[in-house]
Order: sequence, then C-alpha cells, then structure tokens
Amino acid sequence: MTINAVVMPGPDMPLEVRKFAEPVLEPGAVLLRTLGSEVCGTDVHLSKGQLAGVPYPIIPGHVSVGKIAALGPAATDADVPKDVDGSPLELDQVVTFLDVHGNCGRCWYCTVGHATTRCPSRKVYGVTFSAEEGLLGGWSQYIYLKPGVHVVPLPPDLDWRAFLAGGCGMPTALHAVSLGEVAFGDTVVVQGSGPVGLCAAVLAQLRGAGQVIVVGGPEVRLRAATRFGADAVIDIAETTPRERLEAIRDMTRGRGADVTIEATGVASAVAEGMRITRDAGRYVVVGQYTNVGDTAFNPHLDLNQKHLDIRGCWGSDVGHMYRAVRVMARYANQFPWTELISGQYGLDEAQIAIDDVTAQRVVKALIVP
Amino acid sequence: MTINAVVMPGPDMPLEVRKFAEPVLEPGAVLLRTLGSEVCGTDVHLSKGQLAGVPYPIIPGHVSVGKIAALGPAATDADVPKDVDGSPLELDQVVTFLDVHGNCGRCWYCTVGHATTRCPSRKVYGVTFSAEEGLLGGWSQYIYLKPGVHVVPLPPDLDWRAFLAGGCGMPTALHAVSLGEVAFGDTVVVQGSGPVGLCAAVLAQLRGAGQVIVVGGPEVRLRAATRFGADAVIDIAETTPRERLEAIRDMTRGRGADVTIEATGVASAVAEGMRITRDAGRYVVVGQYTNVGDTAFNPHLDLNQKHLDIRGCWGSDVGHMYRAVRVMARYANQFPWTELISGQYGLDEAQIAIDDVTAQRVVKALIVP
Amino acid sequence: MTINAVVMPGPDMPLEVRKFAEPVLEPGAVLLRTLGSEVCGTDVHLSKGQLAGVPYPIIPGHVSVGKIAALGPAATDADVPKDVDGSPLELDQVVTFLDVHGNCGRCWYCTVGHATTRCPSRKVYGVTFSAEEGLLGGWSQYIYLKPGVHVVPLPPDLDWRAFLAGGCGMPTALHAVSLGEVAFGDTVVVQGSGPVGLCAAVLAQLRGAGQVIVVGGPEVRLRAATRFGADAVIDIAETTPRERLEAIRDMTRGRGADVTIEATGVASAVAEGMRITRDAGRYVVVGQYTNVGDTAFNPHLDLNQKHLDIRGCWGSDVGHMYRAVRVMARYANQFPWTELISGQYGLDEAQIAIDDVTAQRVVKALIVP
Amino acid sequence: MTINAVVMPGPDMPLEVRKFAEPVLEPGAVLLRTLGSEVCGTDVHLSKGQLAGVPYPIIPGHVSVGKIAALGPAATDADVPKDVDGSPLELDQVVTFLDVHGNCGRCWYCTVGHATTRCPSRKVYGVTFSAEEGLLGGWSQYIYLKPGVHVVPLPPDLDWRAFLAGGCGMPTALHAVSLGEVAFGDTVVVQGSGPVGLCAAVLAQLRGAGQVIVVGGPEVRLRAATRFGADAVIDIAETTPRERLEAIRDMTRGRGADVTIEATGVASAVAEGMRITRDAGRYVVVGQYTNVGDTAFNPHLDLNQKHLDIRGCWGSDVGHMYRAVRVMARYANQFPWTELISGQYGLDEAQIAIDDVTAQRVVKALIVP
Repeated sequence: MTINAVVMPGPDMPLEVRKFAEPVLEPGAVLLRTLGSEVCGTDVHLSKGQLAGVPYPIIPGHVSVGKIAALGPAATDADVPKDVDGSPLELDQVVTFLDVHGNCGRCWYCTVGHATTRCPSRKVYGVTFSAEEGLLGGWSQYIYLKPGVHVVPLPPDLDWRAFLAGGCGMPTALHAVSLGEVAFGDTVVVQGSGPVGLCAAVLAQLRGAGQVIVVGGPEVRLRAATRFGADAVIDIAETTPRERLEAIRDMTRGRGADVTIEATGVASAVAEGMRITRDAGRYVVVGQYTNVGDTAFNPHLDLNQKHLDIRGCWGSDVGHMYRAVRVMARYANQFPWTELISGQYGLDEAQIAIDDVTAQRVVKALIVP
Repeated sequence: MTINAVVMPGPDMPLEVRKFAEPVLEPGAVLLRTLGSEVCGTDVHLSKGQLAGVPYPIIPGHVSVGKIAALGPAATDADVPKDVDGSPLELDQVVTFLDVHGNCGRCWYCTVGHATTRCPSRKVYGVTFSAEEGLLGGWSQYIYLKPGVHVVPLPPDLDWRAFLAGGCGMPTALHAVSLGEVAFGDTVVVQGSGPVGLCAAVLAQLRGAGQVIVVGGPEVRLRAATRFGADAVIDIAETTPRERLEAIRDMTRGRGADVTIEATGVASAVAEGMRITRDAGRYVVVGQYTNVGDTAFNPHLDLNQKHLDIRGCWGSDVGHMYRAVRVMARYANQFPWTELISGQYGLDEAQIAIDDVTAQRVVKALIVP
Repeated sequence: MTINAVVMPGPDMPLEVRKFAEPVLEPGAVLLRTLGSEVCGTDVHLSKGQLAGVPYPIIPGHVSVGKIAALGPAATDADVPKDVDGSPLELDQVVTFLDVHGNCGRCWYCTVGHATTRCPSRKVYGVTFSAEEGLLGGWSQYIYLKPGVHVVPLPPDLDWRAFLAGGCGMPTALHAVSLGEVAFGDTVVVQGSGPVGLCAAVLAQLRGAGQVIVVGGPEVRLRAATRFGADAVIDIAETTPRERLEAIRDMTRGRGADVTIEATGVASAVAEGMRITRDAGRYVVVGQYTNVGDTAFNPHLDLNQKHLDIRGCWGSDVGHMYRAVRVMARYANQFPWTELISGQYGLDEAQIAIDDVTAQRVVKALIVP
Repeated sequence: MTINAVVMPGPDMPLEVRKFAEPVLEPGAVLLRTLGSEVCGTDVHLSKGQLAGVPYPIIPGHVSVGKIAALGPAATDADVPKDVDGSPLELDQVVTFLDVHGNCGRCWYCTVGHATTRCPSRKVYGVTFSAEEGLLGGWSQYIYLKPGVHVVPLPPDLDWRAFLAGGCGMPTALHAVSLGEVAFGDTVVVQGSGPVGLCAAVLAQLRGAGQVIVVGGPEVRLRAATRFGADAVIDIAETTPRERLEAIRDMTRGRGADVTIEATGVASAVAEGMRITRDAGRYVVVGQYTNVGDTAFNPHLDLNQKHLDIRGCWGSDVGHMYRAVRVMARYANQFPWTELISGQYGLDEAQIAIDDVTAQRVVKALIVP
C-alpha cells in the first residue's frame, strides 16, 4: 500500500501530493484511515511562514477524524492503545485525537504550575512534525498516532462531519469560554466571526448567557452567527470602534459586556475589547495566535480603574478536546453543526482550500481524502 | 378600596381570606397589583410549622409577579423607586422582586464576609413578616413593596406565567448550579424532581452539561424532567440506593457524577449524594431547607479519600433573581416553562393549592388573585 | 469650640489652615478627635489637580485614626453607631474607618455584579467631599463620621502610628495581593517601592511567598524594602528593562515571576510587568491610579501566548480595611511598621509634608494635629 | 556492598533489618544514600494493617532525604535524571523526592479531571511497593529512585533535619491550607496537633491569618503549637465539644472560624468541625486517612443553612512537595523546625520509633540509618 498525503514544502510554496510507504506500527501506536481533516487559520499562517520553528516540509492538518485501521503490537497491557476514558481502542472505531502530543509530565509547568498548555515538550500534529518523520498530519489518507497520543472516540450520535465543522475552533473556544467564567444571564461579546468566534458564540449560549453579540465579518460569517443563535451582530466593515462601543453599551444598560472573547488575530482589537467590557468584567484574549505587532492601550482607563480581568488563553489540552466532543454530541439537535461547512476538498484540491480560507470565502473547509 | 389576601393564622390551621385596607405609600414604596404568586415547598413547611420564628398570622407567597399600581411620593431622586438596573419604575410595568428584603450593608457578613445570604437582618416576604405589618406576602390582590425592595421588570418576551413556572425554584437552582461549577460536558446528577430539581436539570443544560440525570419521583415529575431535557431519570420508588449508585456509575464510565445537586429535603439523600459523585467532584446541598434530623456518612470513604467538595447553598440574592429572569426570557423558546404549571388557584382556593402541593399531585401551583 | 483643619483650596494652590465650627451630630454619626492622618500619593495628585471631579476646596486626608469624642443621638437601636463586627462604639475608643462612604446597596454593581469598588454612589473622605460639607477629611483636629461610615477599632496591641505607617497603602496592597492569588513558595515581584509596593512586599511574605523581589527606587525606599524582608531589590535608576528582565529570570530558573504586583503609576511599567511574569502567571495592576497616557504592548507575545492573567485592581472595600487592621496587629512583632514613618507634621506644616512626599524624600508622612 | 534496610513483614509483626544487594541502575534511575527518613502516622497504620492492599513485606518510609550516590546510565538526554526545575541531577546533591510515583498522564483523572491525586496508577514509596521489588522505602541505607520519580533538591539554607521535621505532614498541610483559601486576617482553627496539624498551624500564619487556634493534645503537642505561633490552644482532654464551640465563638465575635482544617483521624471530629466553622466558611478535611467508621451530622443545621463549604483533601502532588521545600527554606529563621524532632532512631531501633509514635510520646521521630 502506498499512501497519498498533502505536503507543504515551505512558506509561500504550492502544496503537493506525495506518496508515502505504509508505516510499521510500534507498540501503543494506532493507524487511522482519515475520514476528514480541517483547514483552519493556522494552516493559512503555516502557508505564509508566519509561525516560528516549523520543520518544513510538513503534512498539514491538526484536527482530524479517522477510522482505526490498525493497532500496534501489544505485548503487555501498558502497550494496548486506550481512549481517554481507559477503554481499549478497537478496529473500525471512529475517533479524533488531540493534535498536541508529548506533554512531558515531568517539567515544572506539568507538575507544579499545572499550566497544561505551557509544557515546552509539546509537539503538534500538522505543525511541528516534519513530513520526514512520518504521517503526522491530517491531510493524508492515513495518520500515524504515536504511542501516547490522546484518542477520543466520537459517540454514535455525533457525525464526523459535524465534529469537524467545529474543528480546532471548538476546543479552542471551549477553553476560552471556560476561562471567561460566564455567569447565567451575562452579556457575552465575541470579537471575530471565524470558526473560533462562531464556536464561542454557541458555547456562550451553552453557559446560559443572557445575550450574545458577535462583532465581525464578512456578511457570510455574520449570517452564520445569527443562524447559530447570536442575538445581535455588528459588522466591523460598516462601523467605527466608537459606534461599536456605543452599540454594545446601548444593549447593556450602559455597562458593556460582562464577558468578552477576542478571536480576531488583529492587534488593535485588544484595546477595543477592553473598552467594550464592563467594569469588573472578564476579557479573554485567544485570537492573538501570531505576532502582528504592538498595540496601545491606556492602563488607567482600560485596566486599573475598570478593575478589569484580562486572560490570555493559549492552546488546548486533552480535557478541552474531550469536552468538545461531548458537548457537540449532546447539543447536536440544537445546533446544525454541518451547516458551518462551506466546502469539502480532495487531497489534490488542498491548495484551493487554503486559498478559499485565506480569502474568507468559506466558513469552514474540510479536506476529505 | 379593600384588598383581599390569604392569611395563614398559624401552623396546622386552615387558610382564610381576610380584607385589608389600601395602604398609604411611604417615599420609595411601590404598590403591585398581583398577577400571580407561587405555591412552593416553603409554604407547605409554613403550614406545618416547620420553620422557626415565623410571626403568624402571615400572608404567604414569596415569589410573585405584579403590575405596578402606584408609586410612593418622591421628593428627591433618592426616593424614586428604581429597578436593579437603575431605571425609574413606571406605572403598569410588570415586575417581580426579590422576596428577601433588608440586607443591612453594614454587618460583617455584608461587608467583610461577602456572604450575601447570611446577613442577620434579612426579612423575607411571605415568611418573616406578620400580616399585621401589611401586605407583605404574594397571596393577595396587592403587594406592598417597602422602600429598598429589589425590583426586576420582566422583559416583554417573558410571560409572567412562564416566570412563575420556575418560581423561587429558579433562583434557588441558579444559585446551586452556579456553585456546582459545571464544566462543559460534565455529567450532572440532580437528586429530587420538585421545582428546584427540575430547574437545576434545565440549568445544567444551560451550562453545557454532557449528560443530565434526575433521581426522584413520582412519575409525573420524572416525566416533566424528561420533557425538559433530562437524558435519564431514576425513580427512587423503584430502586435501592445501591441500584442507583450502579446505574449512575454505568452511565459515567464507572466514575460517578462530576457534579451532583441535592434538592430533596431528605436527610439520607446527602450521604447517597456523596457516593454517586465522582472522586474530586462537586456536591451542592441546597434541599435541606428544614431540620429533619441527623444522618450518617463515612468521612474517610465519602469525603476525604474521594477528595470531594461539598457546598451548602443557602438562599438567593438579588443577582440570582436578576439572572433567573434573564435566563428564562432568553431560553423561553427552548424550554416550555408554562408546562410546569399544573394548576392555578384563586385566593379562596389557596388551601386546596397547599394540599395539592403537599401531596405532590402537581408540579407547580400558582395563586392567581 | 472651634476646630482647625487644613484646606486645599484648589490645584496648585498653597494649603491653608481654616477654622470650623463644632458640628452638630445627627443620629448615627460619630465625632473623632484625630490622632493622625496619612499623606499619600493621592494627596499629591490632588494638589496637582490630577483627579477629575474633585469639589475644591477640600479637607485632605483619607486614611486616619482618631479617638471617639462624641456619638450622635440614638433614639432607636438602628441609630446606635456600631463597628464592623456589630459592637456599639464607645467614647474614647481608638478607631479607623473606611474612607469610602455610601455604597448604595441597590445598584447593579452592588447587587448583581458584586463589584464592591465600582458602585457609582461611592464618596471618599478627603477626596470627593467639599470642605463646605463639613469635617470630611482627616487633616483636621476632628473628623465627622456620617451615619453609615464603616468603623474599625484598632486592637490594643496595634499602635495607631503603626497602623498609619501602612496607611491606605495597606488595604490597597492587601486587595492587590489577594487578587494575585499567591501560592506557597511563589516568587512575587513588586514593581514600585512606595507605600503600596512596600506593603505588597510584606503581604507577599504573609502569603508564604518563596521569594520577594522589589523593583523600584530611590535607595531610601529600597532599603526599607530590604528591612521589611524583600529577598532582593532592583534599582530602576541603575538598570534597563532588559537587565531587570534578565535579573528576574536568573532568580526564577528562567521562568519569571509567578505573581507580579504593579504599584508604580508609570504607564510603561505595565508592559514590562507582563514580560517579567512567567507564562500562565498572574499580574495585578494596582498603581495606575491616574491617567498618564497610553502605552504599547504585544498582544501575542505578552499576553496570549504567555497564557497570562492580568487583573486591574481598583479601590478598597470594608473587608480590605478590616483585614488590614487584623493583619497589622497580628504581625506587629515581626514587622516594625513604625519605621516606615519618616516624618510627622502639624496641621500648619501640611504643605511641607506634601512637598516632601512629592519629592520622594520620605517613605511615609503623617499629619498629627 | 550490601545494604541494610528495615522490613515490615506484615501487620502486627515486629520490624526486622534485612540485607539487600546493591541495585543495578536502569537509565534515568538514581541511587540515594539515605540521610534520614521520617516516621509518620501512616507507618503506624501500616504496622497495624489498617491500610488496604499493602504488599507486605515492605520497606517503610515515604518521605526521606538522601545524598545522590549514583546516577543511572544516560545514553540520550531523555535519560538524564533531572530535578523538577529541569536541571540535571549531580552526585552528592542533597535531595528529597515525592513518594508518589507513576501518575500515568493518560487516564481521565490525569488529563480531563486534573485531579492530580486521584490517578489510579499512583504507587507510593514505603507503602505500595513490596520489599521484593527493591529498595523502595526510606528506612534503608540506600533508596532506589525509579526513572520518573520527581526529585526536589534541598536549598543550601535548608538543613535536611529541618525539612524532615515537617516530613510528609508539610506537603499534606500545604495542600489542605491551600484548599482552605485562607484570607488575610482570617481566624483559622486546626483540629489535631500531630505533625499535619502543627504544620497547618504554621502555614496558616504564612497565609496571613489573623488568629490561629489549635484544638488537640496531649500537652507536649499543644506546647509545640504555642511554640510555633498558635494564638490559642484548646486541650481536647479537658473540654467538651460544647465548651470548645463556645470558646471558639468567644474568640471570633460569635461567628466561628473562617477556615477550619481537620487533621485528627477521629470520625466524630468532622461534625464538630462543621459546627465550629462560621456560616459561609470553609472546612478542609484532611485527617480521615483511614476508615474508622461512620459519623452523624445534621445536613440542615451543619451544612445547608450554614452555607458551608467542605473540602475533602487527599494526598499530595509534586507541586505540594516542591512548594513545601521552598516555604521551609524561606521561613527557616522564623520557625525553628528542628525543635519538632523529638527523637532520632537507627535502623535497628525502628520498632521503638513506631512504638513511640503510636503512644504519641514524640512529636516527630526520624530514622537515621
């Protein structure tokens, strides 16, 4: 068997489909036949060379779903691949996995700081593995799960396309909304209407928010926000920061948002987010994933006098992925996840997929090998 | 104008309808024409004399909705009655109010402990005011709101019957579920299927629970639980504690509930609740509203080795009521609140209402003068 | 009796001593014979007109200690002036009081937001009361405590000078250090070595910090920091931001501070504070008390990727003052509070006191009428 | 080289000194020459067979200090034994280590629940390893640290005897006091005056408690409590539960303890602890380490109406040990740790040590091979 996989040779270079040999499984490893893998903003950043330390060529694709095609040899119980709940994995199960691999469990961040996403040993499928190391990205017919990769089966009532409609945006947003400590009835403002923002708008409702306002664009995404329950949307192309501030205050008795979730990637959004949040509110910054430069704010007015709480939110851990799967399954009847998918692309169409996501022509794009 | 109101003369004495004179409003006071008032478990306790220090005769009815019939004189701005958001109240507005009145803002619990429900000065409409002090209970054609009572208008999209379907169970459950710190995807078990339990089962879903299990009875209430989204119900009349423990472990990979909310009023439920909660889970005890005696538990197995967190939850504050109104309005399309109302009773039928609630023949009963 | 008090007629105008008539006490009021009142950075800001909405002329002095000289008439128990613990106040007791007066207990921030320092009705002794309204500042022979002012007696083992050595810096720092959630053994960096910074350095030790580093100046203040237990001090006049970052990383295994407390008043200190704090650490900004302009930071590097938590901290509530008194009394043997006092000034020397504080010639200055 | 180690052959059997062969080190392993190992209550439980699943014969001793005598071979960097901060270990370093070994990093409790002490794979030096598996207990001339054991060097200013004076009581108490969320100025009551209780009394002061009260006995231990800063002690042999409740209320303005830490091992202490804690206070139960039967409480009076928070606290993780070392080093001048040591015993005196601890004749006993 030869296996086709998309390879990104380097920044600003066209994607290629290359052939790989079938891997030999070590004890504890799992081979997935890929059902689908998402295209996300990170892949755009990768294609432009905006992330540091990426070992090109790589096989992109970090959140994926597959069917278990083979299990590594297991001489002892410790070698039997198990899911997060401790059940042995079985052939033909449909599963996803946390793209992050290799938290060390030994370092200060793992053991004392309990900062689950700051372990320096973390490696990420589709991002920090070279294509020369194996099938370690999702845009491939098969994915090699190394021993220790955290596997989460999809429940029977959660269609794999529905899960990928959230993609990595769902655990990311779940982490951010959890950090936001939304209280019942709160007004939640989401800055950004990409996949993370839309997932945050849904999850805010699943925290019992009293009002969810999405600030973003373009219109196709704002329509999706409304379709998924946002009480109001504000188009950034048609408003000034001052108008947005006033609109949000008008909707909140003059106070501002109780909780604001930033998911924009635009540096200037951060100071705006401080201002649209009420005094003593909470502001979670999750969208500043790459370095796009400095921005200015007023420490007295925007932070100290406001008694504001600002929380940077980096990465996802196993719990975020596990919980995302459970939430998406439980509320699948309420939220038509698959409507977020604008297009499916074969391996040989991956470049088109990247281009469409770059141009924001789509809400969510999937690679389906 | 004379005003009819139900009076509870004392424990185990039949209710009467008595006539009261129209009150003269002091500055800052508000007169409500009652639209409806709920009958809750507290009223049953009151009728049996199970609460200490009640100044019988009283006008029962603590959570109520009314239309503003008159406003007290306001020589200065400080005397203008305002809602919790700071807007002046207006004639004919439909409002509810927090039954608790008179947090002092001066004592140690108010100022240092920030224990909003433990101020010793608290008085409660329908419970701690004598009928001789005025129209200070909801089972009356009119309710006198003293200066400083916290008023929350109902939004236009929240029918007053829908709000009363939750009644005091909703802010109570909102307080308890908030204390439970439900995380996305958690399994929440609710012990008890009365109004507090049913509201907790709904609110758990509005925290993004992955699974909600209601343990209770009788069948009419368990059917309501299912109708309002519970994933599973367990009838206490048909199961032993061991069977319930095993059923819950079967539904949770052997671990038990992530969060359990007790809303039963039965002392022995508390040790059972500890056992059905997983290690390092959270257990909120909100239903032990009256003293029904001691119960036994094993501190090593049920608490210390389990690393369990147990939180007693007493009373509601303004925020719980304010948030309950917002949540009920926002999710009114999703949850058919009014279906919880089994019966409406006139003032002269109040005794029947109490009897029906005592016998658990109804889910929720309203007094509609 | 005529009463002498210092009056600040307006910004950049010399202080004067004026004579006031003895006030008539309303029910619930208390008259204090002033033992001492502090001079703090706020007074410098007031003298320069850097705070908005100040009703000059004012009597400065917000944190003060006095002996009870008279109690207002008390027809009913509600009128009897009591301390925070609920005990009736007595003549000749030595007490302090929270300078903030008039939290309304009614507004959204008081009742729903539970943001104790964001109630818009708050008034502040020595800052927001005009001299025409009465003896409502501490630089006076007597202070008039309005009904409802929160009074905290000093325990017998806490000398009033010792308490004023902390002054308003102590409850402010106590609020900030509490928000910082210092864990046992943490490295705490304090930016700023004025009264708030020094108090924070002490309080960090009373949270079991493993290491306390003070960044500030001039040398007289850094010597005080060392005297009060700081493990290391860094003089800002002799180091660059990069050198400070490297020094702090050298002392923290390369990670940075677990908790950083900002108490500088300098806008650029805020971005520096983000950088010297470790990934997933906590940064409390309490020193940006006036508007000194914007500053720049990098949302990706300084906040999002760091998974940093930044907490603006505004004002003090009754609990902070009450707890400050208890802590200072309990640990008075361990920390020689009075050594922080560089000078005592009579009412007619108040201008000199302000000048000395402005020039940072002193650590703490007291007005002793 | 042959190595002497104490072996506990089984419950209620006399201890023996046996000879073991020098172990061959696997990659990542470390051999410690034991400086000292503590005798703690757990060892008494082990000697009486009160813990389930112990694989007798065992080498007791779970918290120990040693000098690094040998390091395992390290072909790759991953095999180099490192301390928790990430620094390679070196010969002759004086270190301690977390007795708990083998958190899996894979199970639900490790990855989703973040319940660091509830991983089912945990093994404990001196408790759950058989003597046949090797030198896996501290009462031995040498201790074999398996690959992955978490090692914490002692700072130069922390004498190893001082560290062992706290022993496992210090990380245990550190965990409990952290869970108690002591606020500045709080009254903390500690139930129990054994090593955990004494450490809790010290750590409460290092959280800025306003008052620390120790309830326990016998007198030798209460004297130690006073020596280590307790503001008051109450002898359980000379008081009834009612007298203790009244004494504590007298010392707390009638409210009770803000935070209570249970460290007794006596079941009935738990209900008493609920009662001596104030409304809306926090109660941490850490001392119910073995099953000594049921106890009764009143769910209405002791839990629900009190709005009490009760937290079971099980085990220690790496962070607790790491932080314990830092705190003991930082405050060694303030607390004369070594005074807690009542006696040192050679390997051949281990039985006497157990007997002395059982009879509570000593505060802390060390085994010094």
